[in-house]
Amino acid sequence: MLFLNKSEIQKLGQNIIQTSIEKAYEIMLSKDYHMPDRMHTSDGQNSLLLMPCFSGQYFSTKLVSVFPEAVKHGQSVVNGVMVLFDNISGQPLAIMDGAAITAQRTGAVGGLGVKFLTSEKIKTAGILGAGVQGFSQARYLLFNRRIETLYLYDVNLEMAGKMIEKLKQEFFGIDYVITKTAAELVEKSRLIIAATISHTPLFNAESGALRGKTFISIGSYRPDMQEFPDSVIEAADAVFVDTLFAVDESGDIATPLKKQAAIREKIKEFSSLFEKNTYVENSTIFFKSVGMGLFDLTVSSAIYDMALKKKIGQIIDF
Amino acid sequence: MLFLNKSEIQKLGQNIIQTSIEKAYEIMLSKDYHMPDRMHTSDGQNSLLLMPCFSGQYFSTKLVSVFPEAVKHGQSVVNGVMVLFDNISGQPLAIMDGAAITAQRTGAVGGLGVKFLTSEKIKTAGILGAGVQGFSQARYLLFNRRIETLYLYDVNLEMAGKMIEKLKQEFFGIDYVITKTAAELVEKSRLIIAATISHTPLFNAESGALRGKTFISIGSYRPDMQEFPDSVIEAADAVFVDTLFAVDESGDIATPLKKQAAIREKIKEFSSLFEKNTYVENSTIFFKSVGMGLFDLTVSSAIYDMALKKKIGQIIDF
Repeated sequence: MLFLNKSEIQKLGQNIIQTSIEKAYEIMLSKDYHMPDRMHTSDGQNSLLLMPCFSGQYFSTKLVSVFPEAVKHGQSVVNGVMVLFDNISGQPLAIMDGAAITAQRTGAVGGLGVKFLTSEKIKTAGILGAGVQGFSQARYLLFNRRIETLYLYDVNLEMAGKMIEKLKQEFFGIDYVITKTAAELVEKSRLIIAATISHTPLFNAESGALRGKTFISIGSYRPDMQEFPDSVIEAADAVFVDTLFAVDESGDIATPLKKQAAIREKIKEFSSLFEKNTYVENSTIFFKSVGMGLFDLTVSSAIYDMALKKKIGQIIDF
Repeated sequence: MLFLNKSEIQKLGQNIIQTSIEKAYEIMLSKDYHMPDRMHTSDGQNSLLLMPCFSGQYFSTKLVSVFPEAVKHGQSVVNGVMVLFDNISGQPLAIMDGAAITAQRTGAVGGLGVKFLTSEKIKTAGILGAGVQGFSQARYLLFNRRIETLYLYDVNLEMAGKMIEKLKQEFFGIDYVITKTAAELVEKSRLIIAATISHTPLFNAESGALRGKTFISIGSYRPDMQEFPDSVIEAADAVFVDTLFAVDESGDIATPLKKQAAIREKIKEFSSLFEKNTYVENSTIFFKSVGMGLFDLTVSSAIYDMALKKKIGQIIDF
């Protein structure tokens, strides 16, 4: 059995990860997969998510633990284990760091949103949230677009500073600017990506001030969470979701939808862009991702194949 | 992170495993655990079981794949991965061979049935089924009782022969006898343990012929499976289940219960024996186990603690 830790996963590069997310959308279109609803169990305030998915040569299950108090012990709140199995024999093939897989694939889901739903010419972008996911969103944004000024906002200034230091080591020749408010970031950016655990919108804005911009929401994976004000989805010419589960699972769609049923008509699956790219330059776009096991499956499958080829990882006697 | 494979798990001995199952029953009595219903997903004829459980210092999830066609590729039908996590930080601590954990803990559940529900003086016992589970049942039976003649029945004579060869290497001074029929085995044994995947009862017998014997059913984990004829549960003075889920999950209880509602009154939780041992010598007993995540948790926790102490296993850089 092959074991891959965080740094081994990161070695494999962004291209392979993003290509795997494209493959996941193609599999969605072909319907050649089996993915039960995400399973969830809570023990007090701690949660465990169980995300199985079957398709083609492999099947996988990602186990993600969310322990809010872990931070008090100086440890990450989100941890996880990714298990990849052979889909013919049922045998386990690989164990991977689940948190690293999540960060990479979620970054690439955002990156693909940038690739399909912004103009190639955009020069400004902003990231709301300087956590693990915010950093990963920034990496995949900069992988897809030649940004001149990258704005960053986080309530925690120290974390924002650290994130910029890390980005500078990998992406050069970019002006990194920490804004004082989320509203300032939105005003200055053509593309806004939010990766927070906010329960209330991060800014207020009239629809008019949002026109021509692309908004990507990566946080708000529960109905009681919301990153963008209702005006974003109201202003949007088109709304995309990575999976239709997002409509119920995320407060960024469920909450405005409760008030205005007509919003539902704007909502399309992101995978539809692979049949026909309907993006219109300078239109207002909202893309909401909640993630799914199929992403984890295609990403971990590609990582496994590549790791074997490049002889990366630790082989364990199972 | 610690990684433990099959042979490392087997090294740790039967006592530690059986003591962990006793601990699981004590935890059940104390109610100090969180165990959601076993989760299950099927992709065609292949299945994946997901069994999380939280209690005390650790929580765990066992993933078990059941791929019936794997045998055609010369591989085991049942495979699995056991993941043990820290219950304070949510961090994964250990990965273990899930099939080995299942075999050991299921053997010990049967062994504890033998310990509590048979006379210390029994000299004869029979095992129905010479698969992985049948072998494990035999090991824990012989760990608990000084059996003089062990009967074994399996439709596959070659497998029965191989199982006896393996048992002979570990348990000496025992007459091992392969019977021609399941009925012959039942007739000659004071204790009968079935570990098969049978969908129909393995033998027919009048209630009178079953009196004074102890029956343990380890297979029939689905309502469409049944190992023992209805006459077993009818003849039984007492019926024990490892968990009340067994009443609905196993055809060995669900099927006769449909015909005679009064059977329900006989059913007691095995854990009740830890409050008061109600076993009466020479009575007729039926014990049905379907297993549960709590067993996997206490067994893998004890294995983890012991492995760290004895420096067994492979440490992986997570």
